[in-house]
Amino acid sequence: MAKGSGMIHPNMATMISVITTDAAISAKSLKTALKTAADVSYNRISVDGDTSVCDKVLLLASGLAGNAPIEENTDDYHTFLSALEDVCVTLSKMLAADGEGATKLLTIDDAHMIASAIAKSPLCKTAAFGNDANWGRLLTAAGYSGASFAPAKVDIYIGSVQVCKNGGGLAFDEDAALQVLKKKEVTYIIDLHDGDASDIMWTCDFSLDYVKINADYRT
Amino acid sequence: MAKGSGMIHPNMATMISVITTDAAISAKSLKTALKTAADVSYNRISVDGDTSVCDKVLLLASGLAGNAPIEENTDDYHTFLSALEDVCVTLSKMLAADGEGATKLLTIDDAHMIASAIAKSPLCKTAAFGNDANWGRLLTAAGYSGASFAPAKVDIYIGSVQVCKNGGGLAFDEDAALQVLKKKEVTYIIDLHDGDASDIMWTCDFSLDYVKINADYRT
Repeated sequence: MAKGSGMIHPNMATMISVITTDAAISAKSLKTALKTAADVSYNRISVDGDTSVCDKVLLLASGLAGNAPIEENTDDYHTFLSALEDVCVTLSKMLAADGEGATKLLTIDDAHMIASAIAKSPLCKTAAFGNDANWGRLLTAAGYSGASFAPAKVDIYIGSVQVCKNGGGLAFDEDAALQVLKKKEVTYIIDLHDGDASDIMWTCDFSLDYVKINADYRT
Repeated sequence: MAKGSGMIHPNMATMISVITTDAAISAKSLKTALKTAADVSYNRISVDGDTSVCDKVLLLASGLAGNAPIEENTDDYHTFLSALEDVCVTLSKMLAADGEGATKLLTIDDAHMIASAIAKSPLCKTAAFGNDANWGRLLTAAGYSGASFAPAKVDIYIGSVQVCKNGGGLAFDEDAALQVLKKKEVTYIIDLHDGDASDIMWTCDFSLDYVKINADYRT
């Protein structure tokens, strides 16, 4: 289970998550598995770019399954880790989708600095709220992210709709893009055509309700 | 004169400013003066933390005043620079106050990394929109800014009202703070009690209209 709504961004989000397993596994292996899983899940979500000091993920193993205790660098460990990552990614995506005022989950598939800049950008996130296929805002956030890349090589996709080719506009089907953006889950793919490294962030859109929740909560 | 509304943050804001003077001054001195003045004005404002590639400040000197041409490291140069800084700061504060959806100008008097983090924080800026004396959000943004300081030494003032002492709460006059926050110009002072360095940023609050402007502008 996991709980969180706002002030969420790597690495200190305002959230708590508790995961339980009946597997028998050494404390050391359990800790390593959780750190590995958290890096591809809880540390990949942003609601508003703000953070706090109340961040906690607990993983408790009871050993009730009665298996031979799992140790690192074994097949059993990798099976366990894969299942744990599935759980953590699923919970993390739910946290992002359920962000304050959020109307949709945004997946940003990109190099890390760029994904993080887009996930924090009020302009990219309000465009998502408005179902606006504004790839210029995505490319601009990529540009100021500090990442080194060649803008003239960049392709951008919103869902399956390519909206930017070689860093420029192309005559895409605006209605098809609108249908993609109206869904509860939208994926942005920014392909730099520069090596094989990739990264994912999950975030939500920036809505009127986010402002209401955080401006008026005391009144 | 200056024009800009959103996508504004150092060092590449979406703005244009043109300043004219009839002073006679060498091109080299004029350039140095503008760079110096821009660093304490245009590079101290944020509307939304987003930027773009359309940033420009022009300073044109006609020489019509007929004075002996001003050169650097003279009294005349410092008089000229001081006046130029006044003009640039005034225009920069107007740009921040006139940000998309803004209802007020926020001045953040602090070390640079902290001022910049607060100026970009959706939580701090929505609190300002809601007239909420939420010093915890200010201190939290200071904490994640990357600046090195002792939280237990921090004092925070909203206008003349102290709202945080030695990093903790104190029984301040909530109504007095509300009256300060309801004004069109509000100053946050975060005193780290750690040396004499200080920095200023000007930003605006984060309102419902900001989201509307940037989500619905095409419909």
